[in-house]
Amino acid sequence: MKLKITQRFLRAAFAIAFTISSALSLADIDLGKNNWQWGKDDVLGAGNLMTAQSIKAALSSIDKGEVVELSHNVTMNAPYINGIQTPYVMTLSRTSKNMEKMLTEHMGATNKVGFYLERIEMTTHVSTHIDALGHVTIAAELYNGLDREDAASDTGLNHNGIDKSPPFIAKGVLIDVAAYKGVDTLKEGYAITPEDLQGALKKQNTKIPEGSIVFVHTGWGKNFTAKPQHYAHTGPGLGLAASKWLASKKVVAIGADNMALEVTPGEDPNVIFPVHQHLLVKQGIYIVENVKTDELAEKKLYESTIVMLPTKYQGATGTPLRIIALH
Amino acid sequence: MKLKITQRFLRAAFAIAFTISSALSLADIDLGKNNWQWGKDDVLGAGNLMTAQSIKAALSSIDKGEVVELSHNVTMNAPYINGIQTPYVMTLSRTSKNMEKMLTEHMGATNKVGFYLERIEMTTHVSTHIDALGHVTIAAELYNGLDREDAASDTGLNHNGIDKSPPFIAKGVLIDVAAYKGVDTLKEGYAITPEDLQGALKKQNTKIPEGSIVFVHTGWGKNFTAKPQHYAHTGPGLGLAASKWLASKKVVAIGADNMALEVTPGEDPNVIFPVHQHLLVKQGIYIVENVKTDELAEKKLYESTIVMLPTKYQGATGTPLRIIALH
Amino acid sequence: MKLKITQRFLRAAFAIAFTISSALSLADIDLGKNNWQWGKDDVLGAGNLMTAQSIKAALSSIDKGEVVELSHNVTMNAPYINGIQTPYVMTLSRTSKNMEKMLTEHMGATNKVGFYLERIEMTTHVSTHIDALGHVTIAAELYNGLDREDAASDTGLNHNGIDKSPPFIAKGVLIDVAAYKGVDTLKEGYAITPEDLQGALKKQNTKIPEGSIVFVHTGWGKNFTAKPQHYAHTGPGLGLAASKWLASKKVVAIGADNMALEVTPGEDPNVIFPVHQHLLVKQGIYIVENVKTDELAEKKLYESTIVMLPTKYQGATGTPLRIIALH
Amino acid sequence: MKLKITQRFLRAAFAIAFTISSALSLADIDLGKNNWQWGKDDVLGAGNLMTAQSIKAALSSIDKGEVVELSHNVTMNAPYINGIQTPYVMTLSRTSKNMEKMLTEHMGATNKVGFYLERIEMTTHVSTHIDALGHVTIAAELYNGLDREDAASDTGLNHNGIDKSPPFIAKGVLIDVAAYKGVDTLKEGYAITPEDLQGALKKQNTKIPEGSIVFVHTGWGKNFTAKPQHYAHTGPGLGLAASKWLASKKVVAIGADNMALEVTPGEDPNVIFPVHQHLLVKQGIYIVENVKTDELAEKKLYESTIVMLPTKYQGATGTPLRIIALH
Repeated sequence: MKLKITQRFLRAAFAIAFTISSALSLADIDLGKNNWQWGKDDVLGAGNLMTAQSIKAALSSIDKGEVVELSHNVTMNAPYINGIQTPYVMTLSRTSKNMEKMLTEHMGATNKVGFYLERIEMTTHVSTHIDALGHVTIAAELYNGLDREDAASDTGLNHNGIDKSPPFIAKGVLIDVAAYKGVDTLKEGYAITPEDLQGALKKQNTKIPEGSIVFVHTGWGKNFTAKPQHYAHTGPGLGLAASKWLASKKVVAIGADNMALEVTPGEDPNVIFPVHQHLLVKQGIYIVENVKTDELAEKKLYESTIVMLPTKYQGATGTPLRIIALH
Repeated sequence: MKLKITQRFLRAAFAIAFTISSALSLADIDLGKNNWQWGKDDVLGAGNLMTAQSIKAALSSIDKGEVVELSHNVTMNAPYINGIQTPYVMTLSRTSKNMEKMLTEHMGATNKVGFYLERIEMTTHVSTHIDALGHVTIAAELYNGLDREDAASDTGLNHNGIDKSPPFIAKGVLIDVAAYKGVDTLKEGYAITPEDLQGALKKQNTKIPEGSIVFVHTGWGKNFTAKPQHYAHTGPGLGLAASKWLASKKVVAIGADNMALEVTPGEDPNVIFPVHQHLLVKQGIYIVENVKTDELAEKKLYESTIVMLPTKYQGATGTPLRIIALH
Repeated sequence: MKLKITQRFLRAAFAIAFTISSALSLADIDLGKNNWQWGKDDVLGAGNLMTAQSIKAALSSIDKGEVVELSHNVTMNAPYINGIQTPYVMTLSRTSKNMEKMLTEHMGATNKVGFYLERIEMTTHVSTHIDALGHVTIAAELYNGLDREDAASDTGLNHNGIDKSPPFIAKGVLIDVAAYKGVDTLKEGYAITPEDLQGALKKQNTKIPEGSIVFVHTGWGKNFTAKPQHYAHTGPGLGLAASKWLASKKVVAIGADNMALEVTPGEDPNVIFPVHQHLLVKQGIYIVENVKTDELAEKKLYESTIVMLPTKYQGATGTPLRIIALH
Repeated sequence: MKLKITQRFLRAAFAIAFTISSALSLADIDLGKNNWQWGKDDVLGAGNLMTAQSIKAALSSIDKGEVVELSHNVTMNAPYINGIQTPYVMTLSRTSKNMEKMLTEHMGATNKVGFYLERIEMTTHVSTHIDALGHVTIAAELYNGLDREDAASDTGLNHNGIDKSPPFIAKGVLIDVAAYKGVDTLKEGYAITPEDLQGALKKQNTKIPEGSIVFVHTGWGKNFTAKPQHYAHTGPGLGLAASKWLASKKVVAIGADNMALEVTPGEDPNVIFPVHQHLLVKQGIYIVENVKTDELAEKKLYESTIVMLPTKYQGATGTPLRIIALH
């Protein structure tokens, strides 16, 4: 299996290697230093930017009370990275007819009660989801300088699990880079630049407030349901410089309508998931993936209030969740 | 296994049979009739009571922007009904060290990138969760007259799954029945009556607005972590009359700090889960279980704004979720 | 997902429809009649043909005590029918280092003991496996006239599960149809005929003793590891007439080096898995799939003694197993 | 969860500490030295003792061809070590009626074909099973000096997995220690001594041939189904000295009718699973657990031929299996 992965990645890697002129330099990644900006015991990361005041302000800016949904369903057709992520499986484990029979015959129930239950096998990075700060490491280091020897047991992260994340209520900004570039969908392998973001924001006449949540619309999301395997293994997305520029705006979370937020394959074929390393490990900024941004883009709702409430799977590296934009 | 369940239930059933004078009559359950109040194609049930206007009103009533959390963590220690529900299992499936090695050796990564992933096996009725309208049946009938022959495939509910539920933003009411009764915790097997609810509301000086979400505090929740198996198989909770009275107030969802919302074992030992049948199937009112109500009770925050965003597991009978109260 | 499956099957179906002249007639399938040949309470089916005498005879015919292995490993790369079968997943759930730490720190262990455990998610029809008699139905009817309303609960088959199967020790016959046809591998969609089997047996100078286990070598097995998805969804295999001819020889079990024993897609595109229906439901003959027959074929070991010991997963529809040929 | 385990173990540990006079000394465990007796690349361990000649001899000693079954069913009621092993779960994932409908409506099937499939979640140490040599470590060391840094990936053992084990066909010896002691069942916590084994063998007039498989009957197995949780967490079993004496007889595998082969809790409360360390890591002798020895004991079948064919789950730490004794 490893060989297959290698070949796929190498093929993609070589393709991209010839199309970009200046590869990412190792210096850009800034391995192994933590900024400890919220103190050495912090577990919230950029979640610290949300306060009662900021929440109140975000909620007060809602005009009509209308909701736009930003999540895909979680289904067995959902994209997953073959050989790394495990596929999502859901089947019914208890069914109405059999349960009615059992409750009637074995427990004397007279009220004809039946019910359904299901069994789910999943990794939390299925469909629209948020990454916990502890999802990724730079060598042995997790967010805030935790060492991997202490950070995890066999049954989950001891620190930095998704159960430690705050509820998210913040002003939301949609940056429609596809519209800025005049296309429906950015091309696979296209690395969004700071200039793209700045240009799109200017075109939209939108600003990024401190403490906000930013979603980038690439158009790639239309492949989520239509071509899940293609969607999962490639796509346009943030370049490292763009992620750094967004981080400099002091945002709480960044998401996009693609599998990995960042461009896949990466700008430098030998630098894998640098945006994850920069945002999660260095900056404590949450990453949101497979965001269904199409309705916001279509309605040109560039500013809204975002609510995301990560389910508290203890020690998990993320959680599927339902994101809404209120306006 | 069935025998063991039978014995446990029978034992509990006999115990309760001698302590209550008037058992539930079959007429109270009103089998087999649907009220179709929101039209025959409706999938939202009481979710129809939430509108942009009601959402705007609920959000506008928030004073400070402070958040109270109403969800337990999802853990392998979570209570489950033995022999019916499957236990929750989470283990890490990908670990930083092994992934760094693999990405470095097989994909040529130079940026020392590692990551963690997990595998979860679960039923959605784990920890704090919401029931989909299709979770329960009265004989072959689901919410809104759906027949079970058409309602489900092997891979989930075709209708009435949790993916069909709305996002919940509504005024919230906490009814502290334990405080009204002058106890820390109601006794197991205690069936809350309409008079209990009315008395507690009067004591609190609280009203139940149409379209609100009601949580009942029984005090039983303190056993959630301390004695999960005891917590799962018995407890105080709503009697059928109390659930009917709440339904008459046109609420959107009802929850409590116990395993099944309703009293366990039931008022009549031969009538199992009648409150589920009444609320989900007849009324289309959502049930929320294992709600962590202690902080609201302690702070006497009887009125707040509740936000619940059910993850859209397609065709699932519920979902664990993170509930917040804003005030 | 259903649509996708339909299209794939229809495409295959149309392809085959134009290449065969005489489609399977419905009369050939003989729906809904059971032969009850071993009595109405029988659960063993053709397993009844194995007796202490036949076992003793089979073992006595072993010459050297040498073993040839007939099973593939069970791996995450194993073929599965997309959308019907669930993929096999295995990850370590307990690891030596973490367990040593836990046992030392929390239980006072002084002997530096660590261990590994794994979690497996699977259907039993993964890799080399045997089908239970209850795996397949003709309409509502299982082997020996059982009705599906009684035959299964939510947690498995009540009757005809693999736990009811006998241990298999019997004379084994390899029929190398590929060699008979002068090819390495029969073509996908090729339906093996009775004449093919008879011709190959004559060429090999082999007979099929009553009570034996027959494995057919098609050469398709070389795709098991190399092209698992291709292997899973098509292949040469038994036609219905060939399976009937083998059944007439009173064999205990029939297997092949392909996904479904029978040809895929089927001889008649509108008749799906008729060989399964004939062998399992009508004849009580066990089906063995993904048999690794290459070494037997290469060594021309057409006669041997086969041992298969199905793991007794209670109520399961089959089990992966390790098959050996002794000679 | 860890605290709960600690307390249970400590309670048991203290109980036993006062009832034994001479605790195990650390010197007995002989940490960290490997004997490399079958060469440094060996993966078979004591499996090397089985040859074509020994297999032929074992099979030739079978008198009647009769089979005694030595395996329990694998069920959801099976014992497991709470908090360490994950529970076994099996539910049907595909059902005849739904599949018939799907195959008929979406694929045009005219032959009324339905089928059942199941999903299993398990660890391989469920019910009657065999341990792979790589299951246990002494500090970082696995069988034959492998270091745990190289021995495992996230998806299983790279070496010493159960797929590397041989098929087992060998002379079998049952040692009925319960009968020797004149009891139905040895008491929980009773550590079987070399003298017990020798005495029982003498009483039975049985010898242990080199290369044989030894099963010890303690009588504890009657609790397997009746009291699975009690069965799992305590029991009589081999003391370390007894396991060393058996190893000196050059046996291939050792099993018993209990959870861990060795006595639980252990002879020394601070030395956990020393018999596993000695047999698997030092000696390369396979351990078989939850063996259903009652029928052999009842029939006084002290000598037989044992067949065990471990399913080749790649990289797994063991496998449930069906064991038979032929005589």
